[in-house]
Amino acid sequence: MPKKNLGLIGLGTMGRPMCKNLIDAGYLVTVWNRSQPGIDTCVGYGAVAGSSAKDVAEKSEVVITMVADSPDVLEVVLGPNGVLEGASPGMILIDMTSISPKVTKEIAEKLNKKGVKMLDAPVSGGETGAKAGTLSIMVGGPEEVFKECLPIFEALGKNIIHIGEENGSGQSTKLCNQVICAVNILAVCEGLTLAAKSKIDMEKMFSAVRAGLAGSRILDSLGPKILQRDLEPGFMVKHQQKDLRLVMEAARDLEISLPGASLVHQLYHAVEAEGLSKKGTQALICALEKLAGIKVKK
Amino acid sequence: MPKKNLGLIGLGTMGRPMCKNLIDAGYLVTVWNRSQPGIDTCVGYGAVAGSSAKDVAEKSEVVITMVADSPDVLEVVLGPNGVLEGASPGMILIDMTSISPKVTKEIAEKLNKKGVKMLDAPVSGGETGAKAGTLSIMVGGPEEVFKECLPIFEALGKNIIHIGEENGSGQSTKLCNQVICAVNILAVCEGLTLAAKSKIDMEKMFSAVRAGLAGSRILDSLGPKILQRDLEPGFMVKHQQKDLRLVMEAARDLEISLPGASLVHQLYHAVEAEGLSKKGTQALICALEKLAGIKVKK
Repeated sequence: MPKKNLGLIGLGTMGRPMCKNLIDAGYLVTVWNRSQPGIDTCVGYGAVAGSSAKDVAEKSEVVITMVADSPDVLEVVLGPNGVLEGASPGMILIDMTSISPKVTKEIAEKLNKKGVKMLDAPVSGGETGAKAGTLSIMVGGPEEVFKECLPIFEALGKNIIHIGEENGSGQSTKLCNQVICAVNILAVCEGLTLAAKSKIDMEKMFSAVRAGLAGSRILDSLGPKILQRDLEPGFMVKHQQKDLRLVMEAARDLEISLPGASLVHQLYHAVEAEGLSKKGTQALICALEKLAGIKVKK
Repeated sequence: MPKKNLGLIGLGTMGRPMCKNLIDAGYLVTVWNRSQPGIDTCVGYGAVAGSSAKDVAEKSEVVITMVADSPDVLEVVLGPNGVLEGASPGMILIDMTSISPKVTKEIAEKLNKKGVKMLDAPVSGGETGAKAGTLSIMVGGPEEVFKECLPIFEALGKNIIHIGEENGSGQSTKLCNQVICAVNILAVCEGLTLAAKSKIDMEKMFSAVRAGLAGSRILDSLGPKILQRDLEPGFMVKHQQKDLRLVMEAARDLEISLPGASLVHQLYHAVEAEGLSKKGTQALICALEKLAGIKVKK
């Protein structure tokens, strides 16, 4: 089966390395971005520059969007000169942006009416995973479309799971993932704050707890950074906040109370108030230290 | 070096298997308990029955206490007919109960004045770890006393860490451990509640997230139980609540805000209000389901 002609819209931190991996896997990729530098970089990788989202859609069998947030997907897909204007029936849109499950369903309905199919396929793994082609990909949408697109996903990630037939189920899974991660960051930061104020040896405390039931990937990845006071971002506070805002919107839509996730969201506002929105998510420790009267080093 | 004569006070769920492991390691163990069944069981293992905590102390070079809570340790150590009344200078008390770091310091001071040495050595790993001899042991107190007692700890556990010279530092570490675990249980329960109400396939969501940054021992151990609606206890809600009460006391003493741990403590009150205090800690899901209007199966 010949490789499909791909379109890729959104050439930022994530889109650029994804473009490279798709080209390395042998795909023809037509790209567009709302600013020029991303386009230049991807043309450098061997991509073809499109003139608009509509133009990309006209030239592609599958269009991938990897932009910032729900309004951005709405704009490049449904807006003027957007994907829908250029799409032919049978085209597939894969939205890999992390956005609202509810907005995802609305977009899918509008696309389906014109015979365009859609998958929502948010990822986890960040820039590192995008570069290495090891993203985790959580996919919602019709199974036959998922199967058709699996080779594309395999060029981008490793842990690729089709969650369900419903559009939005990939996005909902991503939100669950973010809830678990964010509240677990609070767990780690509260444990370390208690340790600091108890004046116990932090390294020994860390060794004692990480081998037991308290052990987690968050503890292993962020714990040492916090102990070394390294706030450089793996995943930025401002992106965490965007995801938690999506979680809060979903909680409202579904009428669920998520008191832990809500608390973390509020505490990150305090982190942002310290001018730390571009630091890594481990900067949550600063909010707890502030509450505990521990002098904050930034 | 001949093995020390040991005393063991507190022959409940934890004390009994610990007694067996000490006897299997070749120690002479004199036991006492505030009720008879524990004594009978341990005499069956080969222990010698003492007539009081004081009597146990008179016959032992090292006395281990494994009772329920701070007041119990105060009673059996400092109370009438307690350990201190029977202790000779040079005797060592190892308190393996999880209690307040502050109370631990107070007990150590009183013992030290009479020439009795003390280690605080709370454990994690529960009944399973006690039976298998694989407890994690977090030890506070003078290093030479720790070294002297290391063979005893090795008969009981695997991950044995001397946290610091200060009495109470073992207890403080245990509290940090409990904070991380408890808030992480909230993380997992909120993630699963969001998934349930989003109507996505729970098993697939679980597979998608557990391999990534959301992965943790809590998710691996409690996640499947929650999905199978198995609320049987590994660690009971009422014991979790006791530990969180100790955390809240420490937070007050140290003037720290631990908003996540406090929230979990309050949500477990709602779990207890449903009559679930003897269920496992995964029963936290019931509080979140109640808040989300999901019909609770007990």
